[in-house]
Amino acid sequence: MQSLQIIKIGGNVVDDAVLLDQFLYDFAQIKTPKILIHGGGKIATELAQKLNIAQTMIEGRRVTDSETLKIATMVYAGLVNKNIVAKLQSKQCNAIGLSGADANVISGKKRNHPTIDFGFVGEIVTINTKQIIRFIQQGITPVFCPIIHDSEGTLLNTNADTIATQIAIDLSKTYQVDLSFCFEKKGVLQNPDDDESYIPVINRPEYEQLKTSKIISNGMIPKLDNAFEAINNGVNKVLLYHANQLATLETNLIGTQLQQ
Amino acid sequence: MQSLQIIKIGGNVVDDAVLLDQFLYDFAQIKTPKILIHGGGKIATELAQKLNIAQTMIEGRRVTDSETLKIATMVYAGLVNKNIVAKLQSKQCNAIGLSGADANVISGKKRNHPTIDFGFVGEIVTINTKQIIRFIQQGITPVFCPIIHDSEGTLLNTNADTIATQIAIDLSKTYQVDLSFCFEKKGVLQNPDDDESYIPVINRPEYEQLKTSKIISNGMIPKLDNAFEAINNGVNKVLLYHANQLATLETNLIGTQLQQ
Repeated sequence: MQSLQIIKIGGNVVDDAVLLDQFLYDFAQIKTPKILIHGGGKIATELAQKLNIAQTMIEGRRVTDSETLKIATMVYAGLVNKNIVAKLQSKQCNAIGLSGADANVISGKKRNHPTIDFGFVGEIVTINTKQIIRFIQQGITPVFCPIIHDSEGTLLNTNADTIATQIAIDLSKTYQVDLSFCFEKKGVLQNPDDDESYIPVINRPEYEQLKTSKIISNGMIPKLDNAFEAINNGVNKVLLYHANQLATLETNLIGTQLQQ
Repeated sequence: MQSLQIIKIGGNVVDDAVLLDQFLYDFAQIKTPKILIHGGGKIATELAQKLNIAQTMIEGRRVTDSETLKIATMVYAGLVNKNIVAKLQSKQCNAIGLSGADANVISGKKRNHPTIDFGFVGEIVTINTKQIIRFIQQGITPVFCPIIHDSEGTLLNTNADTIATQIAIDLSKTYQVDLSFCFEKKGVLQNPDDDESYIPVINRPEYEQLKTSKIISNGMIPKLDNAFEAINNGVNKVLLYHANQLATLETNLIGTQLQQ
């Protein structure tokens, strides 16, 4: 099986112009087929503030009303996605920016919650692997923003970690997929104040233990739940590391690797 | 030669939700290969106002400073483009939204003006016809927003009429191209106050006469200069008509047709 690198960068990378530029340079150097998925960053929140559009958080998740969806579409699918694509083109990586609506690559539906209406927040229903594989075979590198569509004309805001995981799982039938979550830490930290305390390998029982002992908490839990889903569903390797470590991905042991 | 419909919609169509939806329905019905190019509309201007970003016009053209470029990228490549693509998908048209950076479909350079710095405004250098043809052959309908890139990592704001014309000229080597400019009038009007006074056919000498007699003036001149360039460079047919007339394009004589 041919190797495929699927790499997700979070908002902290998107927000840091110097880090992002170095990351994109390193990403462009990867010789094997590759896919990038990016999150949003603070720009959308800042834009909502400037426009006096109130942001509602319930259980740590943002409610996406129609005005917030417009902002997410403008920032994620427009500003962030197109700037990343233009930068990759300048680094000789033939990237294409994609929302889920483009060539129908990711369709979904509104998240159904028994009591809370999260608005225009999407759950993935179908990944169009055929089209994604076609891009890859043509030497094109897909760059996904976290906006998908419901096939009825409506865009939906979706979690970028989930998109990365689902694409990785679905493409692992065709490729040997390595999935990386690049963020602003060197991995999953034993001690949140010590960036060198990253745990090199975590398996599922260890993960449960780390949650019980509250070493892993808050935002890391949905991220790692996602990541373990990938490992349990055919993805070859799942790694979490700092975005500035990408250049050493193929040569060194970096970050935290998840194992079953 | 296979027929290809290249259709440009202006800001007035983009701004009118009902008209746009009907137009996209009619566009989706077109059986031959097709390409859509859309302009910006008022949303970018309104967003700039809300964010207190001053807009400078010189000689009727907007100066695009870095903040204005961000707005153009958000609105044209994000909000407008992705909503159009999602709506086309819901109407069974497999559209893909493209800036010039995506798959490097349109590269350009900053417009060079002897005395005025228009900022991040682009002139087209290269249309990647090979990639556009590949999309068409795969049954994918390209939807272009008026943002291109300079191959050095910078996005550039570009006139949508010019993009439509240049794509039409370059693709007329491969297809029999009909180029339509859809707007809010039934064609080029003899009397601007009478929408029924559209001139069915205008050839180049008549165009010069209509300019001299000031029947054609202001914003229509660059639009028609563009359109005549297409006719002079291999495009089969160039038409200007109301966006609500698209459904009758293949059956009736509509709008104003330009001839050499």
